[in-house]
Amino acid sequence: MRRALLNDIFVSIADRGRALLGLPDDADPVDLAGSLCAKLVSERGEASGTALAREIVARYERMDEAGRLRFLAILATRYAPDPDAIRAAAEAYGRTSDFADYMALSRAVEPPRQELLRRINMAPGGTAAIVKMREHLLQALPTHPHLEPVEADLRHLLGSWFNRGFLQIECIDWHTPAAILEKLIAYEAVHAIRGWDDLRRRLARDRRCFAFFHPALPDEPLIFVEVALVRGMSAAITPLIESPSALIDEPAADTAIFYSISNCQPGLRGISFGNFLIKQVVSDLSREFPKLMTFATLSPIPGFRAWVERRFGEGAPDMLAASDREKLREATGRPASKGLVKALLADSSWIRHPALNAALQGPLMRLCAEYLIDVRGKEGPADSVARFHLGNGARIERLNWLADVSAKGLHQSYGLMVNYLYDPADIEANHEAFVREGRVAVSPAAARLRTKPTKLRGRALRLIGRETLVA
Amino acid sequence: MRRALLNDIFVSIADRGRALLGLPDDADPVDLAGSLCAKLVSERGEASGTALAREIVARYERMDEAGRLRFLAILATRYAPDPDAIRAAAEAYGRTSDFADYMALSRAVEPPRQELLRRINMAPGGTAAIVKMREHLLQALPTHPHLEPVEADLRHLLGSWFNRGFLQIECIDWHTPAAILEKLIAYEAVHAIRGWDDLRRRLARDRRCFAFFHPALPDEPLIFVEVALVRGMSAAITPLIESPSALIDEPAADTAIFYSISNCQPGLRGISFGNFLIKQVVSDLSREFPKLMTFATLSPIPGFRAWVERRFGEGAPDMLAASDREKLREATGRPASKGLVKALLADSSWIRHPALNAALQGPLMRLCAEYLIDVRGKEGPADSVARFHLGNGARIERLNWLADVSAKGLHQSYGLMVNYLYDPADIEANHEAFVREGRVAVSPAAARLRTKPTKLRGRALRLIGRETLVA
Amino acid sequence: MRRALLNDIFVSIADRGRALLGLPDDADPVDLAGSLCAKLVSERGEASGTALAREIVARYERMDEAGRLRFLAILATRYAPDPDAIRAAAEAYGRTSDFADYMALSRAVEPPRQELLRRINMAPGGTAAIVKMREHLLQALPTHPHLEPVEADLRHLLGSWFNRGFLQIECIDWHTPAAILEKLIAYEAVHAIRGWDDLRRRLARDRRCFAFFHPALPDEPLIFVEVALVRGMSAAITPLIESPSALIDEPAADTAIFYSISNCQPGLRGISFGNFLIKQVVSDLSREFPKLMTFATLSPIPGFRAWVERRFGEGAPDMLAASDREKLREATGRPASKGLVKALLADSSWIRHPALNAALQGPLMRLCAEYLIDVRGKEGPADSVARFHLGNGARIERLNWLADVSAKGLHQSYGLMVNYLYDPADIEANHEAFVREGRVAVSPAAARLRTKPTKLRGRALRLIGRETLVA
Amino acid sequence: MRRALLNDIFVSIADRGRALLGLPDDADPVDLAGSLCAKLVSERGEASGTALAREIVARYERMDEAGRLRFLAILATRYAPDPDAIRAAAEAYGRTSDFADYMALSRAVEPPRQELLRRINMAPGGTAAIVKMREHLLQALPTHPHLEPVEADLRHLLGSWFNRGFLQIECIDWHTPAAILEKLIAYEAVHAIRGWDDLRRRLARDRRCFAFFHPALPDEPLIFVEVALVRGMSAAITPLIESPSALIDEPAADTAIFYSISNCQPGLRGISFGNFLIKQVVSDLSREFPKLMTFATLSPIPGFRAWVERRFGEGAPDMLAASDREKLREATGRPASKGLVKALLADSSWIRHPALNAALQGPLMRLCAEYLIDVRGKEGPADSVARFHLGNGARIERLNWLADVSAKGLHQSYGLMVNYLYDPADIEANHEAFVREGRVAVSPAAARLRTKPTKLRGRALRLIGRETLVA
Repeated sequence: MRRALLNDIFVSIADRGRALLGLPDDADPVDLAGSLCAKLVSERGEASGTALAREIVARYERMDEAGRLRFLAILATRYAPDPDAIRAAAEAYGRTSDFADYMALSRAVEPPRQELLRRINMAPGGTAAIVKMREHLLQALPTHPHLEPVEADLRHLLGSWFNRGFLQIECIDWHTPAAILEKLIAYEAVHAIRGWDDLRRRLARDRRCFAFFHPALPDEPLIFVEVALVRGMSAAITPLIESPSALIDEPAADTAIFYSISNCQPGLRGISFGNFLIKQVVSDLSREFPKLMTFATLSPIPGFRAWVERRFGEGAPDMLAASDREKLREATGRPASKGLVKALLADSSWIRHPALNAALQGPLMRLCAEYLIDVRGKEGPADSVARFHLGNGARIERLNWLADVSAKGLHQSYGLMVNYLYDPADIEANHEAFVREGRVAVSPAAARLRTKPTKLRGRALRLIGRETLVA
Repeated sequence: MRRALLNDIFVSIADRGRALLGLPDDADPVDLAGSLCAKLVSERGEASGTALAREIVARYERMDEAGRLRFLAILATRYAPDPDAIRAAAEAYGRTSDFADYMALSRAVEPPRQELLRRINMAPGGTAAIVKMREHLLQALPTHPHLEPVEADLRHLLGSWFNRGFLQIECIDWHTPAAILEKLIAYEAVHAIRGWDDLRRRLARDRRCFAFFHPALPDEPLIFVEVALVRGMSAAITPLIESPSALIDEPAADTAIFYSISNCQPGLRGISFGNFLIKQVVSDLSREFPKLMTFATLSPIPGFRAWVERRFGEGAPDMLAASDREKLREATGRPASKGLVKALLADSSWIRHPALNAALQGPLMRLCAEYLIDVRGKEGPADSVARFHLGNGARIERLNWLADVSAKGLHQSYGLMVNYLYDPADIEANHEAFVREGRVAVSPAAARLRTKPTKLRGRALRLIGRETLVA
Repeated sequence: MRRALLNDIFVSIADRGRALLGLPDDADPVDLAGSLCAKLVSERGEASGTALAREIVARYERMDEAGRLRFLAILATRYAPDPDAIRAAAEAYGRTSDFADYMALSRAVEPPRQELLRRINMAPGGTAAIVKMREHLLQALPTHPHLEPVEADLRHLLGSWFNRGFLQIECIDWHTPAAILEKLIAYEAVHAIRGWDDLRRRLARDRRCFAFFHPALPDEPLIFVEVALVRGMSAAITPLIESPSALIDEPAADTAIFYSISNCQPGLRGISFGNFLIKQVVSDLSREFPKLMTFATLSPIPGFRAWVERRFGEGAPDMLAASDREKLREATGRPASKGLVKALLADSSWIRHPALNAALQGPLMRLCAEYLIDVRGKEGPADSVARFHLGNGARIERLNWLADVSAKGLHQSYGLMVNYLYDPADIEANHEAFVREGRVAVSPAAARLRTKPTKLRGRALRLIGRETLVA
Repeated sequence: MRRALLNDIFVSIADRGRALLGLPDDADPVDLAGSLCAKLVSERGEASGTALAREIVARYERMDEAGRLRFLAILATRYAPDPDAIRAAAEAYGRTSDFADYMALSRAVEPPRQELLRRINMAPGGTAAIVKMREHLLQALPTHPHLEPVEADLRHLLGSWFNRGFLQIECIDWHTPAAILEKLIAYEAVHAIRGWDDLRRRLARDRRCFAFFHPALPDEPLIFVEVALVRGMSAAITPLIESPSALIDEPAADTAIFYSISNCQPGLRGISFGNFLIKQVVSDLSREFPKLMTFATLSPIPGFRAWVERRFGEGAPDMLAASDREKLREATGRPASKGLVKALLADSSWIRHPALNAALQGPLMRLCAEYLIDVRGKEGPADSVARFHLGNGARIERLNWLADVSAKGLHQSYGLMVNYLYDPADIEANHEAFVREGRVAVSPAAARLRTKPTKLRGRALRLIGRETLVA
C-alpha cells in the first residue's frame, strides 16, 4: 500500500491550474500573491483551490524580507474582520440573544484571514509555509506591532493543528535518514553537536534520542530530547558530550539523564510540547529498560550568573559562612568580603586555582540554591529552565559543582548545573502544588544548601515513598 | 526509526493519573465524564491533561444512547459562551475598536467547548472519539435541535483538522492489511461488496482503489473510490461488479471508470473530500498509465424515478415522439398515452418484454436527459450525484440504457445510469461555469437526447479540443 | 529508500533479450525450454542470462503435467554428470591425490544440473519456480524413479538456500496484508480455518501467529504456528478454534498453547524449520509476556487409532483394569473383554453414552500412554507428531480425554489429544537424551498412566526444578 | 507485521545453550572454536545448533590474525574430504555406475567443511562472519597456499548464496539511514568521498546512487554505482565530483553518466554483480526518465600509463604524426623524437604548459585508443576497467583529454578518461561478439584515433540505428 501525502501527487492539475489563471510570470510577486489570495478566498467551489494555494506558497517562498513584510501587511489589512459588521452583529445579538444572531456575530468576529490560511494549508508544503510565516512574523513583530492580529490568527490555527493528539513520537538513531539527522545538528540548542562523528556518539547504544513530528512536516522534528543511560545521576556534562567517551552497556544503566532539549521550529514558539515529550520518554524508557530507577535532567542554569551579578550590585548580604571566610582568606591572603568575592568572580580564572575553587564552592552553591528555589519573576521561578521543569512536575534534586566548565557554562552559571528529577509517582502532585500554590518541589539535600534552612522545616511535604520538600 | 502515535505510549502515566484523580469506578459515567471535563478545562497546566482526556474518551465510548445525549447536553449547556460576557465585550469594542477589546470579544464569542474538545483530542483515540460524537449528534439533531451549537463547534474543529493538507492518499489493494480491507466491505455504499472473494475481484490487477486517510485515524478510510481499467467507456455495471468477470490486461486499458465512491465516516458529513479525491486519482492514474485517454464515472441517478413519478402526477406533457407512439402501440396493442406509459412503468415487468423495452427507451432516455440537465433544486441540479460531479467540473457524457437492472437500479432510475466525464483540460472551466453561472457541461450527444434541442444551440461552448455544450 | 527485488526491475532488457533470441512463439514449449536451458548453461558471459532464465520460468509455469514430466526428464538426462569423465577424474585423483585432481573430480561429480538451476534462479520468480519444480517432482517420483537424481540436486540446492540464517520470522495478525492471510486459510493443515471470520478469531488479541518467510518468496509463508494465550494448559481443542469463543485478556494469560503447526510448501518437504520456529516463538513470547510460565502444544495423535486397531488384531492383552471391567459390565450389561472393547470402539457411538464413555476412558488413556511413550518405528516414536516434538526436546506432559470430538479427532485418536511441554530449561537435555539414547521425556503423571509403571522407576531423570521421567 | 531476522530473537535460548555446553570462558579461543565446530557437525539433531554456531561466530570475531589463521587451518585439515573414502567410493562407482554408488561418491567428495559452514550460517550474523572469513583467507592465501581448499568451499557456498535472484536493489539518497550512508564514504574506491557534505552532493536530486543488498546483510551494500544526470556525455570528472557544483534540473537531463562503481565486500571477490547492476540501473532510469537517451560511463584507464612506459622501453615506434612533430618542436625547441616524448612524460609538468599539452594530445590519444582497443592480456583487454565494461556489452565511445588531472588521474593515465557507452539495443550483440570472437565494440570516432585505421575498415559491423566498429 503506497502512502503519499496527497500534496505530491496533485502536481499536474495544479500546473494546469496555474496556466488557467493567466498569471504573467513577471508581475511583482507580492502583488501577485495578494491577487491569488483574493481569488482563493473568493472561490465558492474548490476546483482550483489547490492550484491557487500552491502558487501563493511558491511565491511566498521566493520573497525576500521586504516582500514578506508587505505580504504580511496584506494579511493584516485586507483580511481583518470588518468592525462595522462586528458592531452590527453585536447589536443584533444584544437584542435577541438568538443562536442565529450568535452565529452571525461569531462569523463577523472571525477574521477572513483564518479561512485564507486554512486554504493555503491545502497546498503541497502549505503547513510548512505557514509555520515559516509565523517565524518571519515573530521576528518582525517587535518593530511592526500592527502585525499582532496576524500573529493571533497564526497562533490560534497552529495551536489547533499541532494539538498533541496529532503528534508522533520517534526514536532517532543511527538508522534514521540523514535528511532528519542533519536537522539535529542544525537545531541542537543546548550543547552544540560538532559534526557527524559527534552526532554518532550521541546516538550510540547507551543513548536515546526522541523527537515529536507532525505528519504534515515529515522530515522536520518539532522538538527533540537527548538521553544518556548511565549508572548513577550524572554530575557533569563533559562525560556525556565528549565524543570518544566510553560506552556503557545499556542493560547496566539505572538512570536516564535528559541532557539536552531543543525546540526546532521558531514558527511554533509558545505552542509547547516539551513537557509532554519528557513524560512520554520517561514512560517509553521505563518499558524498554525496567531496571531504570531514576529519570533526571542535567540542566543548565542560564540566569544564575546574571542574577548574582545584579545581587552584588544591590547590596545583598555576602552569603559567606565562617568556614568560607577562612578558606577565602587562606586562598587569597586577603580578608573575606563580598567585595572580594565579587572581584574574584568577575573573570573565570578562579576555576584554575584549587584553593579558590574550594573557597567559592560553598557560597556559590548556597546562592544557587536560593536562586532556583526562592527567586521568582512574574511568570514563576526566575530561571527559565527551572520554570519549565518545575512546571512539568519535576523537582530540584541536586546542584552540581564544576559541572559545565565550558566558556558558556562559566558564563551562564559559574559552571554549576542542576539535576531536575522526574519521579513518575510525584509528577502530578508536584505539578498541582506548583500550579495552584506556586510551591516548588525540592529534595532535602538541595533545600539544605540554602542560607535559611530553618524556614523550610514546617513545609516539608511527604509524598509516597520519597521525602520531598516543597518550598 | 520507530514511529508511533504518541497516544499509545503514554499509557502508564495516564493510568497513574486515573488513580490520582480518585474517581470511584461505580459513579454514574455521564456525571463522571462531566466532572472530568470540568477538571480538564480548569487545569491551568497540562500535567494530567492526557489522563483526564483518556478518562473522558473511555467513558464516552461506554455510554449508551441516553448517556450520550446527556453528555452532549452537558456540552451544550455548560460550555456555551456567556451571553453577558459577549454583550459586555461587544459594548467595549463598540466604544474603542481597540485590538485588545477585539481580542476580548473574540475570546468571549468562542465557546469554551472548543477548548474542551481540543483538550479531549489529546487523548489516545481522541480524534476518533470526537468524530463519533459528531456522528451521534447528527443522528440526534433532528429531535434535539438545542444541540445545534455543539454541532457548530464540532463542524468547525473537524473542518480545520481534516483540512486537505493533512490527508494522505493510499492505493488499496490485496496487499493492504485486512483490518483496513474489512472497512471497505462495511462502508461500500453504492454497489455492495458481498464478502472477501467479491472484494478480491474489486482489487484485481485491472482495478484500482484509492482512499483518503487522516494520520490520527490510521485504520479508518475517510472516503474511497473504486476504479475499473477498461477498453471504452463502460455502459453497464454488471460486468464491473460481477465476481468472476474476465480480467483485462491493464496495459491495454484506455479508460478509467470510477464506478463507486463511498464516504466512510458519518461524523465527517459535510466536510467533503470527494472532489479532491477524484481529481487526485485522475492525476495519479495518468502518470501510472500514460495510455489512459478517458476518465469517467458510471454513476447511478438516484432521484430520476421519483422525479418521473412526480411529473406524471403534475400533468406534464407525455414526452412521446411519433416513433415512440408507434412502437408503444405495437407492443401493447393500445394507443400510446402518458397514462399508458405511467401504467407500464408502475412495476418493472416491462424490462422483460423486448418490444416494451424498445418502446420505452426513447421516452425514458429523453426524460432522463431533461432531468439531469435542466431540473434544478435550491442547491443546483436536482439529482444529488449529478450535483456532486457537475460541481467538481465533470460533464454529463452519456446516458446508458439497461445499465443497472438490479432491483435497486430499476427502483432508482428505471435501470439507467450515466457517465460523467472528467477531462483534465476542461475541469476548471466547467467548474467555473457551474459555480458562477449555474451552467451544466453536457456532451453534444447527451444534449441531443432532450426534447427541446433547439434551445441548446445558441449556448454551445467550445473548449480546447472537445465540443462541450453547457446547458 | 526504495527496496525492490531486482527481479521486477529488469523487465525491459529481458524483453528485449527475448526478441534477440529469435524464438518462435509457437514452438513446442518443452522443446523450447530445453533449448533455452542449453543456451543458458553454455553462455560464457551473463549478458542474456536473466532473459533466458525468465523464458524458462515462464514456459515451465505454462506446462501441463505431461510437459513438466518431459521437462524434468530433460533435466535428468541431459544435465547428468558424465560417468566417463567421473571415472577418468577418479583415476587421476587415485594416482596423485593432488588438490588440482581433487577439484577436477569434484567438478566431474557435480551434475551440470546444479549450475543450470542456479542460473534459472536468477530470473524473476526463479526461486518460486524451483520450489514448484520440486513439488511436481516429489509427486511424480513414486512412478518415475529415474527422476531421483534431479530430486537429489533440488534437495541439495534448496537446503542450502533455505538455510535458517536466511529465514525471517513474522508475527501475523489482522494488520497483515490479505495476500498473506489468504495463504493461512489455504495452508492450515491441522484444524481447518473456515473463512475470514474464523481467521480473524485466530488472530485476535489473545492469539499469536508466527511464520517463517524467505526473502525470495515474500508473500509465501514457509511454515506457521498458531498460539493461544490462556490460563492453564488447554485440555480440549473446541474452545480454541470455535469462532465466537470468549477472548481472554492477554496480560492475564500464564500459558501459551501451540495448537496448530502447518508446513506450507510441499516443494520444501524434508527441509524442516518447525523445530526452529517453535523455539523461537517460545523465546519471543517470553519477552513479550514475562508472566507466561508454560509453553505447551495441544496436539493430535494421528496414529493412535490405527495402532489400537492393529493391536486388537494382534492378540495383545486387553488393557482392562478391574475397575474398568466393572464399569464396562455395568454400562453394557455384558462381561468385559477385549472383544467387547473392540466392538464398542468400532464406531463412535460410545461417545454419546456417558457410562460407556466413562468405562472406556481408563483403557484408552492407558493404551495411548503406551503408544506415545513406548511404541517405536524405525525412525523413532511411531506417532509422527510425537516424533517431531520429542525430537525437538519437548516432553509428553498430559493426555486429554474428549479433547477433540470432531469426526477427524475421533477417527484419528478416539478424541484424545496430548500436550507436549516446551520447558526452555529442559529442551536441550531432553533433545540430547532423545537423539543419543532414544529416550523420551515424559511427565510423571503421563508415565503413571501406562500399564507397567514399575518399569519406569529406575529411569527417572531429575532435571533442574522439574521432575521429568525419561522413558 | 513485525519482520525480524530470526537471528536477533533467539538470543535467550542460545545463551542458555552456551551455559549448557559447559565451556570455560578462559580456554584458548581457537581451541574452543575448534571444539565447538566438532560438536556442531556431529550434532545429529539441531536443538543446540544455533547456540553452537553463535559461539563459533562470537569467538571468531574476537580472534586476532594469528588466531584466524589457526582457525582457518583447522577448517583446512580437520574438515577436508577423506582421500581413502573418495578412492573407495570412486572404485565402487567405477564398477557399478549405480546411482547409489554415485551418491556415495558425491558425498565422499563433498568436504565436511561445507556442511560445517552451512551450520555456522544459522547463527545470528553467520553470513557476515563467513564473508569476513573469506576476506581474511584471501589476504592470507598468497603466503598460505595450503588454505586453497577452504577458499574453494567458501567461494562455492557464497556464490550459491549470493545468487542474483537473492539480491535486492536499492536507490540510495539523503533519506537513507546514516548507518548505510557511512558505508558509501568508507567503500568508495574510485573518486574518494570527502565527508558528509561531499556525500550529500553526490546524492543530490541530479544524481542517483544504486546498490545491491543481500537480505542477510541488511546494512551492508555489496556494490554501488554513482550516476550523474547531465546534458551531453561528460568529458571530465571534476564537474561531477566537486562539491559545490551546480545542480542540473533532472528533467532536463538527456544522459546518465556512471562515474563510479565500487565493490564493498572483499570477502565476495570474484562473485561479481557489477554487470548486472549496471544493466538494471539502465533499465530503472529509462523508466524513471523517459527522456534519457544516452547511458555511458566516465571511466578511468588504470593501466594506460604503465603500458606506455613499458612500450617506451620496448623500442616501439614513436606514434608521432607529422603535425605532432611540428608542435613538439615548437613547444620544446628540440627535434621531436620518442626520447623527447618519454622525457616529457616522465613527470607531469607538461600539463601546465599549453603548448606542450597541445603537442602531446595527439600522440597520447592515439596511444590510448590503441591500448584500449588492440592490447590484450590473457583474460582479454589489457585494461581491467575496459575488460569489465566491454565484457558487459558496452562499447568504447569517446576518449577524453584532460579529463582527470588529479594526481591519481595523471599517474594512471596522463589525465585521460574514457566513456563506455551502454546502448540497450546493442548490449547483447556486443557481448556475444566479445565473448565468442573476442571482438571489441568501438565507436567510429574512437576507432579513427588509432594509428592504423586502414585495418579497421573491413570489420565494421552495422547494428540497428548506430554505426559500431568492432575491432
